[in-house]
Amino acid sequence: MYDIIIIGAGPGGYVAAERAGQLGKKVLLVEKEELGGVCLNRGCIPTKTLLNSSKLYKQAKGPAPYGVHAEDVTFNWDEAMTWKKKVVKNQRNGVAFLMKENGVEVLIGKALLLEGKKVRVDNKIYEGQNIIISTGSSNFIPPVPGADGSNVVTSREILELQEIPKSLAVIGGGVIGMEFASLFSNLGVKVSVIEMLDEILPMMDKDHARVMRRDMKGIDFHLSCRLEKIEGTSLIFSTNGKRETLEADLVLMAVGRRPNIYGLERIGLDIDKGQIVVNERMETNLPGVYAVGDVTGLSMLAHSASRMGEVAVNNICGNRDRMRYNAVPWAVYTSPEAAGCGMTEAEAKASGRKVKTASVLMKHNGRFLAEHGKTAVGTCKVVVDAETEVLLGVHLIGGISSELVAGAAAMIESELRVKEIKEIVFPHPSLSEVIRDAVWAIDR
Amino acid sequence: MYDIIIIGAGPGGYVAAERAGQLGKKVLLVEKEELGGVCLNRGCIPTKTLLNSSKLYKQAKGPAPYGVHAEDVTFNWDEAMTWKKKVVKNQRNGVAFLMKENGVEVLIGKALLLEGKKVRVDNKIYEGQNIIISTGSSNFIPPVPGADGSNVVTSREILELQEIPKSLAVIGGGVIGMEFASLFSNLGVKVSVIEMLDEILPMMDKDHARVMRRDMKGIDFHLSCRLEKIEGTSLIFSTNGKRETLEADLVLMAVGRRPNIYGLERIGLDIDKGQIVVNERMETNLPGVYAVGDVTGLSMLAHSASRMGEVAVNNICGNRDRMRYNAVPWAVYTSPEAAGCGMTEAEAKASGRKVKTASVLMKHNGRFLAEHGKTAVGTCKVVVDAETEVLLGVHLIGGISSELVAGAAAMIESELRVKEIKEIVFPHPSLSEVIRDAVWAIDR
Repeated sequence: MYDIIIIGAGPGGYVAAERAGQLGKKVLLVEKEELGGVCLNRGCIPTKTLLNSSKLYKQAKGPAPYGVHAEDVTFNWDEAMTWKKKVVKNQRNGVAFLMKENGVEVLIGKALLLEGKKVRVDNKIYEGQNIIISTGSSNFIPPVPGADGSNVVTSREILELQEIPKSLAVIGGGVIGMEFASLFSNLGVKVSVIEMLDEILPMMDKDHARVMRRDMKGIDFHLSCRLEKIEGTSLIFSTNGKRETLEADLVLMAVGRRPNIYGLERIGLDIDKGQIVVNERMETNLPGVYAVGDVTGLSMLAHSASRMGEVAVNNICGNRDRMRYNAVPWAVYTSPEAAGCGMTEAEAKASGRKVKTASVLMKHNGRFLAEHGKTAVGTCKVVVDAETEVLLGVHLIGGISSELVAGAAAMIESELRVKEIKEIVFPHPSLSEVIRDAVWAIDR
Repeated sequence: MYDIIIIGAGPGGYVAAERAGQLGKKVLLVEKEELGGVCLNRGCIPTKTLLNSSKLYKQAKGPAPYGVHAEDVTFNWDEAMTWKKKVVKNQRNGVAFLMKENGVEVLIGKALLLEGKKVRVDNKIYEGQNIIISTGSSNFIPPVPGADGSNVVTSREILELQEIPKSLAVIGGGVIGMEFASLFSNLGVKVSVIEMLDEILPMMDKDHARVMRRDMKGIDFHLSCRLEKIEGTSLIFSTNGKRETLEADLVLMAVGRRPNIYGLERIGLDIDKGQIVVNERMETNLPGVYAVGDVTGLSMLAHSASRMGEVAVNNICGNRDRMRYNAVPWAVYTSPEAAGCGMTEAEAKASGRKVKTASVLMKHNGRFLAEHGKTAVGTCKVVVDAETEVLLGVHLIGGISSELVAGAAAMIESELRVKEIKEIVFPHPSLSEVIRDAVWAIDR
């Protein structure tokens, strides 16, 4: 009998296992593939590693007002892939070490959740006082004719490419699609993006999404388009009833991910629209059964999954905790990067609030100018509740946005007001000052 | 009659002028040289611009597991200096624009503060309801024989060098000294640092300072050394009574900066140890006369000066405000970078507190490994009050520490406790996660 059996060792499952182990619980962590889940093995970590390589290449090829010159800048895909594999392996070993250090029992095998908080793995039955389902999600392949072609891949296969494609069509302008579009565009590949909606990256401030799209000059965008079929290297799609064709050697399907709920319906678990229903304590309708991460469909981000895992473990251990989504940051590691936390202006208004906003351009920031040059795009926009003056959202594009947004998350989670943020001292010169400057620009 | 006359247009003075202008005050800003002061023209901004160039060069020359290759990497000092000048000019124009936008009157000339809140500039007298003294500081040249040699420079002259020196001796291992040591070491110059104390960078956690020093393999450190004299390119110094000599084409004097108080003693201003005495409202002993920034000697950092300027203006305008130093971050833009905010472990213990600390290595962070490689140094250390669990300090070395520390400043200023920080969601994968991980490592 285990205190907790956790199904799935992604950032929801392994973090929950680590925290529960720290608290002295007897934990079994079951994983069907590899420790770290999609994020570590076939998602965030390998993508960001390759994106970094592609950014270094783009930077080395680009204009250099900084005084550094290099001849014959080349990119070696094999080396970049080898480095990616090393990073992934290192992180996976790190998770294995954490599990060992915290006394977590790890079992590699396919788990089937049975009634009565029993789990079957390889015909053996394990029993837990509590269950945490963190089975994650899988790439969704839309039922488009030709989507099963040999040149059609998902994020999983594109991370194992033997060589750089000559041209790439990305179906879906969400985070996954845009990151791969940016990665290959940085490497000089002809990239097209086909998006059903009228703008890429729907969670972003619309103005920022437009800035990003316009700055990605090497990418050919087709918005408000529906893919009709794929015939070999030809993609047929329609825009407002008009039919168009484009050619691409490789097609990346990035239209979304679906929670992994196979086999979970049978035991009476409340599942709605393909997602396990949970409350803010991460409890499902079955007593002692929790669900965290992508399988809940609530916030399909690695760090949300980790926090949900912590909430589930805290509640299991009698430390009341609840999941909040208002201060969950997101980041897109494209060139340019973008990140945000909290409500966009549109979301805040839609929620019925009166809001005040302010934007500052990063090019007015000394460090940004010094390190990114005069033509780099960059903006920081803040959204504040006009009545309470509480910070509701921070939205960044440009520079190292993905590293600045944690500070914004701390401020939003702490429900700081404009006056309080004005009293925080930011280091000068740093790009982080754009958040302070944007807050000061409110009411100006 | 002005509402406020501000003497000195550095980050203390120009920010005070901007805020006061925004609040509708009639402001005169007097500057003897250029808008932006030392920080913008001859300090932070030009130094960080050149440091960035040197880091790009070092990176391009270094090992590249990332798959990017370049031949014949060269550094063009003239171009780097041209870029530095452009950045400085751009920022200076930005300050001029801000002054105009906020209705601040700018006067270039040498100001002499007279009794009765009168200021003389070029034989004309101006009168203010309030005065803000933000005259900054100047490099201190110690009375060492030979310190007036033609190859001995301060940070001011070294930023105007026509060419890269063959060898450089830096006198003083503080922030200014270490940044120039790192800059020229990155460019391949033989650099020696002579420091009187037994460790460089005294505000840093001792362990971090040692890590930094050991990681700077190209620099020859002489600690606990006293410079005795300079004879041309020979520097004679003593260590524990033993006399040694080293050769260097160029000598940088970076032993400290002294507040600019010339002429201020005459009017009855309370000056102690060469610094203008102020209270937490930035008031001097003379009613209506405030002092902010380096001239107070309290926290010789650009962002401290700006915040002090804001505090002075708020108090002048009847909005009570007080300067606090417990959450003022600092950053050193060396390779590796370092930054910190709040108390070090040693400071917290010296204050009589019981403390808990935890450190995490950045190499366990996925993004750090992916972008900085396996051999890069990096640590995040947190210091917490053992009784209240309030975060007292965050200390970083490695990666983009200087950009992560603003988030730490927000948490320390907000007096967050361990439990509250654990509930903040940090984006994954990002280097910023090291702060969260270090907080989670407490009590483990």
